[in-house]
Amino acid sequence: MNSVKLAEMDWMSYRDRVKDGECTILLPVGAIEQHGPHMSLNPDVLIPEHIACRVAERSGNMLVAPPIAYGYKSQVKSGGGNFFPGTTCVSGRSLEEYAYDVILAYVAHGNREFIVVNGHFENSMFLVEAADRAVEHARLSGIEIKVVLLSYWDFISATTIEKVFPEGFSGWAVEHGGVLETSIMLKIHPELVDMSKAVDIPPAEFPPYDVFPPDPAWVPSSGTLSSPAKATAEKGKWILDECIAGICRTFG
Amino acid sequence: MNSVKLAEMDWMSYRDRVKDGECTILLPVGAIEQHGPHMSLNPDVLIPEHIACRVAERSGNMLVAPPIAYGYKSQVKSGGGNFFPGTTCVSGRSLEEYAYDVILAYVAHGNREFIVVNGHFENSMFLVEAADRAVEHARLSGIEIKVVLLSYWDFISATTIEKVFPEGFSGWAVEHGGVLETSIMLKIHPELVDMSKAVDIPPAEFPPYDVFPPDPAWVPSSGTLSSPAKATAEKGKWILDECIAGICRTFG
Amino acid sequence: MNSVKLAEMDWMSYRDRVKDGECTILLPVGAIEQHGPHMSLNPDVLIPEHIACRVAERSGNMLVAPPIAYGYKSQVKSGGGNFFPGTTCVSGRSLEEYAYDVILAYVAHGNREFIVVNGHFENSMFLVEAADRAVEHARLSGIEIKVVLLSYWDFISATTIEKVFPEGFSGWAVEHGGVLETSIMLKIHPELVDMSKAVDIPPAEFPPYDVFPPDPAWVPSSGTLSSPAKATAEKGKWILDECIAGICRTFG
Amino acid sequence: MNSVKLAEMDWMSYRDRVKDGECTILLPVGAIEQHGPHMSLNPDVLIPEHIACRVAERSGNMLVAPPIAYGYKSQVKSGGGNFFPGTTCVSGRSLEEYAYDVILAYVAHGNREFIVVNGHFENSMFLVEAADRAVEHARLSGIEIKVVLLSYWDFISATTIEKVFPEGFSGWAVEHGGVLETSIMLKIHPELVDMSKAVDIPPAEFPPYDVFPPDPAWVPSSGTLSSPAKATAEKGKWILDECIAGICRTFG
Amino acid sequence: MNSVKLAEMDWMSYRDRVKDGECTILLPVGAIEQHGPHMSLNPDVLIPEHIACRVAERSGNMLVAPPIAYGYKSQVKSGGGNFFPGTTCVSGRSLEEYAYDVILAYVAHGNREFIVVNGHFENSMFLVEAADRAVEHARLSGIEIKVVLLSYWDFISATTIEKVFPEGFSGWAVEHGGVLETSIMLKIHPELVDMSKAVDIPPAEFPPYDVFPPDPAWVPSSGTLSSPAKATAEKGKWILDECIAGICRTFG
Amino acid sequence: MNSVKLAEMDWMSYRDRVKDGECTILLPVGAIEQHGPHMSLNPDVLIPEHIACRVAERSGNMLVAPPIAYGYKSQVKSGGGNFFPGTTCVSGRSLEEYAYDVILAYVAHGNREFIVVNGHFENSMFLVEAADRAVEHARLSGIEIKVVLLSYWDFISATTIEKVFPEGFSGWAVEHGGVLETSIMLKIHPELVDMSKAVDIPPAEFPPYDVFPPDPAWVPSSGTLSSPAKATAEKGKWILDECIAGICRTFG
Repeated sequence: MNSVKLAEMDWMSYRDRVKDGECTILLPVGAIEQHGPHMSLNPDVLIPEHIACRVAERSGNMLVAPPIAYGYKSQVKSGGGNFFPGTTCVSGRSLEEYAYDVILAYVAHGNREFIVVNGHFENSMFLVEAADRAVEHARLSGIEIKVVLLSYWDFISATTIEKVFPEGFSGWAVEHGGVLETSIMLKIHPELVDMSKAVDIPPAEFPPYDVFPPDPAWVPSSGTLSSPAKATAEKGKWILDECIAGICRTFG
Repeated sequence: MNSVKLAEMDWMSYRDRVKDGECTILLPVGAIEQHGPHMSLNPDVLIPEHIACRVAERSGNMLVAPPIAYGYKSQVKSGGGNFFPGTTCVSGRSLEEYAYDVILAYVAHGNREFIVVNGHFENSMFLVEAADRAVEHARLSGIEIKVVLLSYWDFISATTIEKVFPEGFSGWAVEHGGVLETSIMLKIHPELVDMSKAVDIPPAEFPPYDVFPPDPAWVPSSGTLSSPAKATAEKGKWILDECIAGICRTFG
Repeated sequence: MNSVKLAEMDWMSYRDRVKDGECTILLPVGAIEQHGPHMSLNPDVLIPEHIACRVAERSGNMLVAPPIAYGYKSQVKSGGGNFFPGTTCVSGRSLEEYAYDVILAYVAHGNREFIVVNGHFENSMFLVEAADRAVEHARLSGIEIKVVLLSYWDFISATTIEKVFPEGFSGWAVEHGGVLETSIMLKIHPELVDMSKAVDIPPAEFPPYDVFPPDPAWVPSSGTLSSPAKATAEKGKWILDECIAGICRTFG
Repeated sequence: MNSVKLAEMDWMSYRDRVKDGECTILLPVGAIEQHGPHMSLNPDVLIPEHIACRVAERSGNMLVAPPIAYGYKSQVKSGGGNFFPGTTCVSGRSLEEYAYDVILAYVAHGNREFIVVNGHFENSMFLVEAADRAVEHARLSGIEIKVVLLSYWDFISATTIEKVFPEGFSGWAVEHGGVLETSIMLKIHPELVDMSKAVDIPPAEFPPYDVFPPDPAWVPSSGTLSSPAKATAEKGKWILDECIAGICRTFG
Repeated sequence: MNSVKLAEMDWMSYRDRVKDGECTILLPVGAIEQHGPHMSLNPDVLIPEHIACRVAERSGNMLVAPPIAYGYKSQVKSGGGNFFPGTTCVSGRSLEEYAYDVILAYVAHGNREFIVVNGHFENSMFLVEAADRAVEHARLSGIEIKVVLLSYWDFISATTIEKVFPEGFSGWAVEHGGVLETSIMLKIHPELVDMSKAVDIPPAEFPPYDVFPPDPAWVPSSGTLSSPAKATAEKGKWILDECIAGICRTFG
Repeated sequence: MNSVKLAEMDWMSYRDRVKDGECTILLPVGAIEQHGPHMSLNPDVLIPEHIACRVAERSGNMLVAPPIAYGYKSQVKSGGGNFFPGTTCVSGRSLEEYAYDVILAYVAHGNREFIVVNGHFENSMFLVEAADRAVEHARLSGIEIKVVLLSYWDFISATTIEKVFPEGFSGWAVEHGGVLETSIMLKIHPELVDMSKAVDIPPAEFPPYDVFPPDPAWVPSSGTLSSPAKATAEKGKWILDECIAGICRTFG
């Protein structure tokens, strides 16, 4: 039971770790969402949880909460859209309320510092609202908390992008199921990637607006928004190393 | 990627499995809750997920969804209470809305049959409401779905109880963190149990009412409501075998 | 206007009774639900209100609030199910919010002690949530309140059960519309019971799970889950006497 | 069990009355609110329920539902304000949701016609919203319902007002706890009125706006907004007769 | 940028005006609702905003917030009903929450005094709830605020009514789209009134109840509830002058 | 009353324009938010409304709805943060519900096509949810609608950016209150800009995460995230011309 995952601790050990309010709780939030025919539905959960665990191991002063697995509705231009079989999403309100409650439950144990590690772009604004309201609610009880909200990819540098994409980067907007996520998954969960099914497509192009109901014709039929073909576990390692180091350096 | 866990499938394989609406989705719902000093915080998640996976493996026609990990507030007389460090619970409304959205998201993929496998007593009524409302909402769209809601322990027979408790059973009400849950965890996750820390106590006794705010003095200081001391992996196997067989026989 | 029912008091008399915060408010919560062809739809309201009034009369320090009459959705295995004509139920959220508001309104008058007297099993968890949230909200205002939540049947002893069921007790689970409730109603509202219409059936048997939408074929066509045939007013008196005495002894 | 109160019927008798959808359900909605030192807290519940019962008796085709007892927050200029001990009110949302659910539960039994009989001015707009949303929700299920919303005092004619107030009528706005309500209560529940405690005051005068938090100094200290001194049971009979006859004539 | 409309100020100038908490914020709330074939859809927004600006100009100590433009559902007997094309209304809950948030946002800047200037009758009770809850929430944070809620027409005297309606006043209830509103609009926005399209009708008469779904046959086909034919800009000036003077005198 | 602003039409003219369902409703959604000491608080409302009006004028088949003025909470890295005096924001839920209701109200008039013209970055995801839910709700009623969601700045080309920023573009992320918005305001509302107060600062730099409560020290003290010093009305015209032309070309 010596783990950075708090759910694997017994409650007395956990209590002793958090009671002084100086432990930081890392809360991964992801999504169940198609990532192309070559990959499982859960990279957005597994990647932030992996990163959170590595950060916590280095820090010595952090614990990782069980991830919130189901996230906000996949959007066409960032995740392919909410109409793919396998893409299994909740409403903004549900995600907000659930994350809000979870944060405040950890506050009740004495925790005061949180890092929400987001793995799914579409979650962001609902996590903003959850964090903002949790801070306000805690304050009504006379408790000051601090909630950091980060998306792991924001810790990837231009240098690494150049190294990962020597032939040019098509941009963050179309990275869904592409080289970045696939490379990370090849590194941390190769058993959940089958590169023989990877579809090599040009980067998707989208008009400068969204439409509801979404139009499936906007999305490549594979579900990825760019080609994962050049993904490798080595690239995944570069990316992870940088994200983990960056987060540690900032909050360690 | 040959798994009964749907999140480990790629979306095209998943789509092919569910498109005719004849696959049953097993949705484990648990809790993060103290289970005594000898056990991790996540038995209520791991046990229903384990059972769901074994059932799905035997069935050939079922898939297991990612569990909903955070459940409704632990109550004193069934889970020790919501004031223990480590017990990390959400409001009834949050659980209801989150589970409701998740069920309806699977309906959108074409699924029509669900078994919600509950591992935390306090979740029950909020899952009832989620299931009832999901059925009603689907019907407004012209879709008939069927949602079974079960708590795995309801499949344990009196015979097995006698076998597990040869010296007499103190009753379901005080089984929190006791022989049943501990035995199952010894069987499926021995690394998350440390029997050397198990506290041998007489079964808790409670008055015939509840009080809010809860009174921690009602609860044994270890957090379990009866003694886990006689738990063994073998007993865990008996229980699991019966639950899994019973669920398979009923819904297989 | 000398009554234990607070709604029958004028406001100044009420104010004088509650202003020191030492009066306990008894809040009956019931349901409008079929109870077989031999009985009215309101036992779940009338019984807890009756008990509350008798308790308040003995106590001298309690007042009875107007009951919340409509409760949470009847479930097949405890109340026959929400599809019977006459069974008139609200959502969990509506019950929770309504009860929450009512409790806090009494807090605003200066009351600090509450006993919620529940007469309908299905209400329980939503009243738990209402009570828990009311305690938390009052605390944000710097007010400590105490809310007891009880279901009257939990004060019936094994001895009384044996006396009421000399031929053996089929268990609490199937008591809906059976000997217990019918006997109490024969005692307190004989005009609402017509024993000539009572249907003598064996106790209902249910599988170890629930299903949504519910299957009416699971429920005896009379709507009761066991036979009310042996109900008598005398048995009703035994039960009531014990419940009232028990509640008085505990909280008086 | 031969009653116009549906809660006093057994479910089979009720079913037979409502199954053709031609029975009208009368739903009284009131409030628990101070009405001066001379009267109980429940006139807003008892009066609409009384009127509903008399209307149903004459009609032969109507049934009276259990009242919704707790209503929206008393306002200074219509009910004295929400700060009086004994005035026990719920939020607009709670009332709306509760009433909405109750109406739709009766729809599920086959009922299609409703008359909501309001006894508390402040409820009106929240009942409008409940009715409007219930109609819309039923329509989504392919069911057309009709919900009438009335406040009983709107059926009192100018002629009766002149007869009841031979010395001049101070206006509806200040009738809270005055001659009209007191007279009706003297007629239907004399045991809940004590005219010796009635406070004879001039009609309250208010500025043309509201203020929050309300200012108790705006309200006569007795809590009534005009004098109940000239109330009599005979006047109560005139008023009731006219309301009941008017409602019957319109909807009978 | 020297304006009484706060949205036209730069933030530093605004900050300097409000930082001592002694500025009063005037918040107009209206509706988009048909007002007959002779007038635009926005009188309920433009009139309270106009009045608020004139009041603020005279006061020197008030600022006008951007109006909340969409209000609660038009009702047949006060606004013609929610079924007219152009009548564009939100639910009670949406209006309540939106207004509640807006008030509390201004509180966060340091403001403590508010006047909500309502221009649409149907908004009233939802604004009551918004104001009441905002006061309570602010208080939980240790902040006392005061929210006045007024509808401008309540400042029109009987004398002015006699002057405006020399041939007799049909009553407030049917003034929708009639002489009062049309005269004001002729004064402040003559470009949005076309008197050649005004329909001269007798005042509408309504039964003493409401019905849902509403019956369009109750409403004059023009959408106004009385005739606007005798509206003039001069009458509009009389009315405005009195309302503005009255509000200034009361709160200035 | 010949206007593209639908609120300036009488209801019969509006009805005639929309009854065939082929008119597109443009709904501007903005925010009240500080934009530096040189500019008013309402650019996020005025700009999308201006663009919508110009688009509608060219199209001949579109109408502009009254804007939703108050938007979601300003964030530090896109709008300076929600702690500036003058920044007046609502919760995500309020914005979502309000916009959802407004869209569905226009659907009730017969409209089937909508373009939500967003002027405040932080609104985006809550408008996504409003649009998604509105589409789903309409569909339950058998009505198919189409809601386009656009932020006007997404129609600005790289060419125009180069022309507007000849010395290099600091990036969209820091454009809050900078050259783009200021230039547009100088073109359409020069009276609301005072360039003499413009503060010339280097572009803000932010860490790759957010924190709650936000840290005001992250934000330039002027409130803008880059310098507006080089804004001109001519640049504003270039930008507007391109946005208006682009939207017309796409949806005209």
